[in-house]
Amino acid sequence: MQAPEALARLAEDYLACIELTPDLGAQQDSMRYALEGGKRIRAVICLATAEAAGGKPEVALPAAAALELVHAFSLVHDDLPALDDDDERRGRPSAHIAFPEGIALLAGDALLVEAFRLALSYPATGPARELAEATLGMIGGQYLDITGTTDDLAELHRLKTGRLFAASVGLGLQAAGVPPAEQAPWRAFGEELGLLFQIVDDVLDGDGYAERLGADGARALVRAAADRATTALDAIPAGTEILQEIVDGLVVRTA
Amino acid sequence: MQAPEALARLAEDYLACIELTPDLGAQQDSMRYALEGGKRIRAVICLATAEAAGGKPEVALPAAAALELVHAFSLVHDDLPALDDDDERRGRPSAHIAFPEGIALLAGDALLVEAFRLALSYPATGPARELAEATLGMIGGQYLDITGTTDDLAELHRLKTGRLFAASVGLGLQAAGVPPAEQAPWRAFGEELGLLFQIVDDVLDGDGYAERLGADGARALVRAAADRATTALDAIPAGTEILQEIVDGLVVRTA
Repeated sequence: MQAPEALARLAEDYLACIELTPDLGAQQDSMRYALEGGKRIRAVICLATAEAAGGKPEVALPAAAALELVHAFSLVHDDLPALDDDDERRGRPSAHIAFPEGIALLAGDALLVEAFRLALSYPATGPARELAEATLGMIGGQYLDITGTTDDLAELHRLKTGRLFAASVGLGLQAAGVPPAEQAPWRAFGEELGLLFQIVDDVLDGDGYAERLGADGARALVRAAADRATTALDAIPAGTEILQEIVDGLVVRTA
Repeated sequence: MQAPEALARLAEDYLACIELTPDLGAQQDSMRYALEGGKRIRAVICLATAEAAGGKPEVALPAAAALELVHAFSLVHDDLPALDDDDERRGRPSAHIAFPEGIALLAGDALLVEAFRLALSYPATGPARELAEATLGMIGGQYLDITGTTDDLAELHRLKTGRLFAASVGLGLQAAGVPPAEQAPWRAFGEELGLLFQIVDDVLDGDGYAERLGADGARALVRAAADRATTALDAIPAGTEILQEIVDGLVVRTA
């Protein structure tokens, strides 16, 4: 079993050498720029799930990369002036600052489609279908967020962040060939993991749950979510210690 | 065999009742707005190809709709201020005029992903793979267009318009279950059809080829492209009279 750090390097190396569609020409530069510098947590979850489920992490690399491309697409578009209007991302100028805004817009579009091309490198339609459904949920969450049309923070988080986290587990299962009938306990873990990540994120950013409950209240929520994630992991009949390490790593960030 | 007008109505009815992902909530309104009012030529080509190849047009409806959703996505994003900055589309306010710009941006994203969800309703990955590759080519063409980095109008058109036209034939073939070994003459027709459409479009808009060659020169190019499309059709061992009607219909628009 490879540690989360080793899996992150595996994903990083794969993303660094990823072949984009030649027809994109120099548009590729902005896409590679937008892909640089992430923590690759979604990829790591996908690879760790595949390995825990008995597959080689390598079989899950295209799926793991697809998740990171969808994540990068969402950041590029969310940062645009028409949405969050953020000039900085991952400690550097956002894509639309480093490149003309129109090029950044197209970079997001192309990252999204390249993600599907990667997910479609598997023989079955399952991985790409799950990626599409998760991405649509994520867009629905972004819609709720920018329009302020809901007070239900849990629902907003479940869509905007949770769907892609749950899909990170789901694509790992599909890449490893876990039969649908055996996926339920893994998927229950994926749901808890997404919620945990979002509460941790709120604590670090001081918004969302941290704003509503205060720092101590949100930290108590982190512990409760981590406990539920661990309980979900314990229900999986496989060696899930790396996934537990990922859970513990998230909690440590808020300690 | 159904006439192009009947196929267009079939596509229109399907699009009017299309089920979008419930998680998108009220974001669906902007997507449906952006979908309204097209001529559905890509859908008609897809349905006519499927029927000419021996399938029922109905089996190609999800593929035909997917093509129209990708087309609608591209229009919504191309109209945004960061790209072409067009306030009008199909005789109505563009999506980012009718809705806040951020909502229009997300509408484009969601239309693109819903297109993949439709293409993924087929049992094999082929239709979605072809859609992804065509869409990436289209984005590469849009990049060439906005950056003005090429003088090669044929290459620009082949990517920006031609790839999705060729995929309209390709997805029709896949939906009808035409074996890959028998697809070559159909695909040759698809390439010619895309070029023909673009030259016709240039004549109607007075730009591109019409600007370079003058109206008469461009019209001569239309006739030559139509002749090549007809020659390509004649090489297909099937009843292609509806596809010929589509070719003739395009030429008539410039007469």
